[in-house]
Amino acid sequence: MNKTKVGIINVTGYAGVELARLLHQHPQVELTSVTGRSAAGQKLGKVFPHLAGIDLTIETELDEVDLVFSAMPHQESAKEVITLLDRGIKVVDISADFRLKDATEYQNWYSFTHPAPQLLKQAVYGLTELYRSQVASARLVANPGCYPTGAILALAPVVKEGLIEPDIIIDSKSGVSGAGRTLSLRTHFSEVNEDVTAYALDGHRHLPEIVQELKLLRPEQPLSVTFVPHLIPMTRGILTTCYAPLASGKVAAGKKAAEELRQLYLDFYKDEPFVKVVESPPHTKHTWGNNLCLIHPTIDPRTGRLIVISCLDNLVKGAAGQAVQNMNLMLGLPETTGLEALAIYP
Amino acid sequence: MNKTKVGIINVTGYAGVELARLLHQHPQVELTSVTGRSAAGQKLGKVFPHLAGIDLTIETELDEVDLVFSAMPHQESAKEVITLLDRGIKVVDISADFRLKDATEYQNWYSFTHPAPQLLKQAVYGLTELYRSQVASARLVANPGCYPTGAILALAPVVKEGLIEPDIIIDSKSGVSGAGRTLSLRTHFSEVNEDVTAYALDGHRHLPEIVQELKLLRPEQPLSVTFVPHLIPMTRGILTTCYAPLASGKVAAGKKAAEELRQLYLDFYKDEPFVKVVESPPHTKHTWGNNLCLIHPTIDPRTGRLIVISCLDNLVKGAAGQAVQNMNLMLGLPETTGLEALAIYP
Amino acid sequence: MNKTKVGIINVTGYAGVELARLLHQHPQVELTSVTGRSAAGQKLGKVFPHLAGIDLTIETELDEVDLVFSAMPHQESAKEVITLLDRGIKVVDISADFRLKDATEYQNWYSFTHPAPQLLKQAVYGLTELYRSQVASARLVANPGCYPTGAILALAPVVKEGLIEPDIIIDSKSGVSGAGRTLSLRTHFSEVNEDVTAYALDGHRHLPEIVQELKLLRPEQPLSVTFVPHLIPMTRGILTTCYAPLASGKVAAGKKAAEELRQLYLDFYKDEPFVKVVESPPHTKHTWGNNLCLIHPTIDPRTGRLIVISCLDNLVKGAAGQAVQNMNLMLGLPETTGLEALAIYP
Amino acid sequence: MNKTKVGIINVTGYAGVELARLLHQHPQVELTSVTGRSAAGQKLGKVFPHLAGIDLTIETELDEVDLVFSAMPHQESAKEVITLLDRGIKVVDISADFRLKDATEYQNWYSFTHPAPQLLKQAVYGLTELYRSQVASARLVANPGCYPTGAILALAPVVKEGLIEPDIIIDSKSGVSGAGRTLSLRTHFSEVNEDVTAYALDGHRHLPEIVQELKLLRPEQPLSVTFVPHLIPMTRGILTTCYAPLASGKVAAGKKAAEELRQLYLDFYKDEPFVKVVESPPHTKHTWGNNLCLIHPTIDPRTGRLIVISCLDNLVKGAAGQAVQNMNLMLGLPETTGLEALAIYP
Repeated sequence: MNKTKVGIINVTGYAGVELARLLHQHPQVELTSVTGRSAAGQKLGKVFPHLAGIDLTIETELDEVDLVFSAMPHQESAKEVITLLDRGIKVVDISADFRLKDATEYQNWYSFTHPAPQLLKQAVYGLTELYRSQVASARLVANPGCYPTGAILALAPVVKEGLIEPDIIIDSKSGVSGAGRTLSLRTHFSEVNEDVTAYALDGHRHLPEIVQELKLLRPEQPLSVTFVPHLIPMTRGILTTCYAPLASGKVAAGKKAAEELRQLYLDFYKDEPFVKVVESPPHTKHTWGNNLCLIHPTIDPRTGRLIVISCLDNLVKGAAGQAVQNMNLMLGLPETTGLEALAIYP
Repeated sequence: MNKTKVGIINVTGYAGVELARLLHQHPQVELTSVTGRSAAGQKLGKVFPHLAGIDLTIETELDEVDLVFSAMPHQESAKEVITLLDRGIKVVDISADFRLKDATEYQNWYSFTHPAPQLLKQAVYGLTELYRSQVASARLVANPGCYPTGAILALAPVVKEGLIEPDIIIDSKSGVSGAGRTLSLRTHFSEVNEDVTAYALDGHRHLPEIVQELKLLRPEQPLSVTFVPHLIPMTRGILTTCYAPLASGKVAAGKKAAEELRQLYLDFYKDEPFVKVVESPPHTKHTWGNNLCLIHPTIDPRTGRLIVISCLDNLVKGAAGQAVQNMNLMLGLPETTGLEALAIYP
Repeated sequence: MNKTKVGIINVTGYAGVELARLLHQHPQVELTSVTGRSAAGQKLGKVFPHLAGIDLTIETELDEVDLVFSAMPHQESAKEVITLLDRGIKVVDISADFRLKDATEYQNWYSFTHPAPQLLKQAVYGLTELYRSQVASARLVANPGCYPTGAILALAPVVKEGLIEPDIIIDSKSGVSGAGRTLSLRTHFSEVNEDVTAYALDGHRHLPEIVQELKLLRPEQPLSVTFVPHLIPMTRGILTTCYAPLASGKVAAGKKAAEELRQLYLDFYKDEPFVKVVESPPHTKHTWGNNLCLIHPTIDPRTGRLIVISCLDNLVKGAAGQAVQNMNLMLGLPETTGLEALAIYP
Repeated sequence: MNKTKVGIINVTGYAGVELARLLHQHPQVELTSVTGRSAAGQKLGKVFPHLAGIDLTIETELDEVDLVFSAMPHQESAKEVITLLDRGIKVVDISADFRLKDATEYQNWYSFTHPAPQLLKQAVYGLTELYRSQVASARLVANPGCYPTGAILALAPVVKEGLIEPDIIIDSKSGVSGAGRTLSLRTHFSEVNEDVTAYALDGHRHLPEIVQELKLLRPEQPLSVTFVPHLIPMTRGILTTCYAPLASGKVAAGKKAAEELRQLYLDFYKDEPFVKVVESPPHTKHTWGNNLCLIHPTIDPRTGRLIVISCLDNLVKGAAGQAVQNMNLMLGLPETTGLEALAIYP
């Protein structure tokens, strides 16, 4: 059987090389073409020694493939995607360019006029757990951001069921690889090691994505979401702690409430291969290199407030792994193909 | 002039050795006696090479001193403190044993019956910025916990002024030294490196301390406080992110609100040598080794919610530094004596 | 086809759980039994959440299997191994108990009298690259230590060819997981983070193993080996820097010498799937989670001295991965089965 | 008494800000002027929040001062220094521009023609322990590199006494701050975290400095020095492990040799405030933020080879602290003034 040919545009960032790693190990597809501007002409394994086992040269133009992952920066990705779709190639876009349904939001949050607003409706938001069937038939999947993946999965069950009041706090702690491979003082080792800080207090670009998706889960529910990301001194992993008041009268009182809540999550995610509802506060370490999102819902016994904690590997379930998960569906493959790896611990 | 003689009980933990370091460099006091069970009989500088410049032997019994820091574990510290006070020695207690005013809380949170409830009222809660004059005349100061120091300083201005609604979320990220020098799997390098997790979701012992002090700032204000601490892979530092709804009608709308809020904090802390209200989200790195608490208050522009972020070095302003700050007042010395060191960066 | 059943004795250390991870993902064997004293009776995935996908309970006694990995501490492992061999079960021993050929060395280095000196000759030293055929027919393989694997692979080509003088310096830098999961102050996060130190200056237990194997490569060559291990603040990885004088007259002068040397290494390891001779100083990061040993041989242009640098993941090629590599040979499987994973970067 | 006015040229690197920190806390000098191109016009404490306590603006031109530290990059520093000396201002040059005595070495190692070869003889190499009296009367001190400081102090006693054979191996492990504040992929957090690598195998610029100074200690001694630096994932600290054969007949045999060796070091450094000969392998952590160099000399019991390990904080004794130590001598102040701080542990 011939394997499906896939390619990566702009392979040279952390999401790009993680895609290359996962696709190389995928039994049903073949990574046959990778592009990248800065390193064009060089062997992939020369620029990224951990990929020495992949015999590909970084090109400026993509070869013929059946499906492409675009890991271009936002705004540039949209242009590429339009051309690819015209050529009849399916696309999983790692950038933010097709995540938001409202074109004006691109002006607000990314300062550019979206070049193809008509595609925003066609594009499927690739949070696989929420859009499985749409992904399966999509020709363009907008792969979610790393923060939204953890936040939305953490909150989806209670939002959908109307179990919480509108006031949601999302406090995320991210490893540094989420900030990419581009140099900056805030990702300079001596600055970020032994340090923690909050950032983007006036609004992180992942906020509109989170709000859009939570609202779609229960359109009649008003929402007031505060999202504060933090950078912590580790390479991979995002832990997100969500807080919200429980809607009165919806959940039983006392200890029973926590059990009920837990059951709600277990039910909601019961068939999900990559979402695990866990009994104690999860560790990002247990997702290191795998495609899982671990979720721990509980109730603050003193205030009756909902606390839900989720964690994932920002480069796997938060980026490349979820992209492969979406690709599997788009190609009619079992969803977990190539994504069964256990976390590497310690 | 003779220097005041001071001692440390149970010098062998991280707070204990940090006290030794600060006291050794203090120009007005002399550290003349240190005790510790496990290492008794050994030179302090043998057990802790960075203290090789201090010529003291770790003893089992304290020598005659004028003021003592107790760095004993809780429950054991109380017993020591009672004896010391009887001998007329002033005490700064690093443990939790005199922080809570309500003796029954020791049963609830620490599972022991407090041996001297009558002292709980005498003891002054040593958050210097709030109890300066009481500390100055105290014979027993209960040095605050590391989390409460950052959380209370972050919230005090708005709680006191009644600017927020009762629903407070306190999300803290702590370096590992806060968990002490006692071995445990959760502080084992390979477990905590490249990991972040939340803990104590059913109630951390620092919560009653935070609630007690916030309530005292505005007794008529109802409060519903959720506090979730997280452990992150660094040695020193705590960053605390606080969230609360602004009370309606109390703060101006729009951009002006953030300015007003900032001014409130600047005024509240205007004479404080160790609290700095800063213009952008603070970094724990900027408090590495110094006695500062950096505070950044702001308003989420989309939800109008209060966000206040504070950070400090958990072993200095969160423990030993604040203890020395209290000692200075108790001895009639300028509050900043021996605490002027700048943070060590990077 | 029925998979071969394998088991792990004492699964609860870092080498043990890494074995479990690799064996679970192995297409030709089935991990059917794991033992461990401390955690007996618990589900493996409960104690080690990253192994939640493995449905096994930690037992006190091993079930029937065809091959066993013993991850017991030294001295205890020997006893288990003797029993297992008597039952006709093949064994890969992760401990040091069958690595040394001379029984008296166990007295010198491990302070115990070896219980089965006769087995020391039968046991094959499982540095697969040097003993491939013997491993294939062995019923007992002594899996090498993490330091020896990197050091011997780095030096084997030049020692075997007699290209160096006897004076060998081996300076190794190891991540902390090599020190295991047992608690100790030297692996306590706050002690080891932001620190580097040398240890075992009077002789590390891996030294006799290194010397034994280097001598066997060229028995007539006198050797004077100094080995100094260092602990550095990271979880996985060992980098070893070896220094030795080149034997005069054996290598061409000048730049050509480095090329000749490189060619020698390329030839020596040309058929090895898990040893890569690389063109620039290797990074442990490029071996994170894979079974590779990267080797960079060069000549100091000013002194004409040999410098060889090797690196590997101490828990994979330095322990569990190499054990699986040996198992593959012992079971007649292709050597790389289950070990093809690329390193996880960054 | 008026304090001596001092300035810093190019304050914006890590050595520069560390100088600012130390000078601000120095009781006998006043930091009155700092320059820096990129940040000119901004408050020092705005660019570096940990220096908020210093009320200085970063200027393009230096004010009148009595002594200047130049923290300019090499080649640029030389030009500045020439001008400063012409103006009669004493200089401590942090750059490499006056460390090497042979002007042709600048062509070889730094690829530029030295603009003032005549000053190379005047300049005093500021390894204070070796050139104390010359420093005291110098108008230009070339502050040593971070690696040379640790390596030369480790080897000086045995080289000077002729106790070793020429074959010296120097294997150094450095924290990342030594690579400076300038952005590069090799200091990007996600690249260097969880990684160790060797670099500059064809010759690091600190090598000629090390060789020059070791030769000056015993001109008749031939030397063959190999120096390999490694980058490890921590911010501050250098640990250097030196290896050399002992000269036959110079040191007693057996255990006595190690004692004799240790005594030699104790004698050599007996009056040194900043060099401590320690009994066990030192930890960089015990020099975090202080001006000490810890040295542990020993003999490999099996090979009779000398092993000497030194460690220091690369930004203090390896840069800014040593510069202040030199300044103290140049200004006739006690050498330890402003440098008494204990290390910050953990």
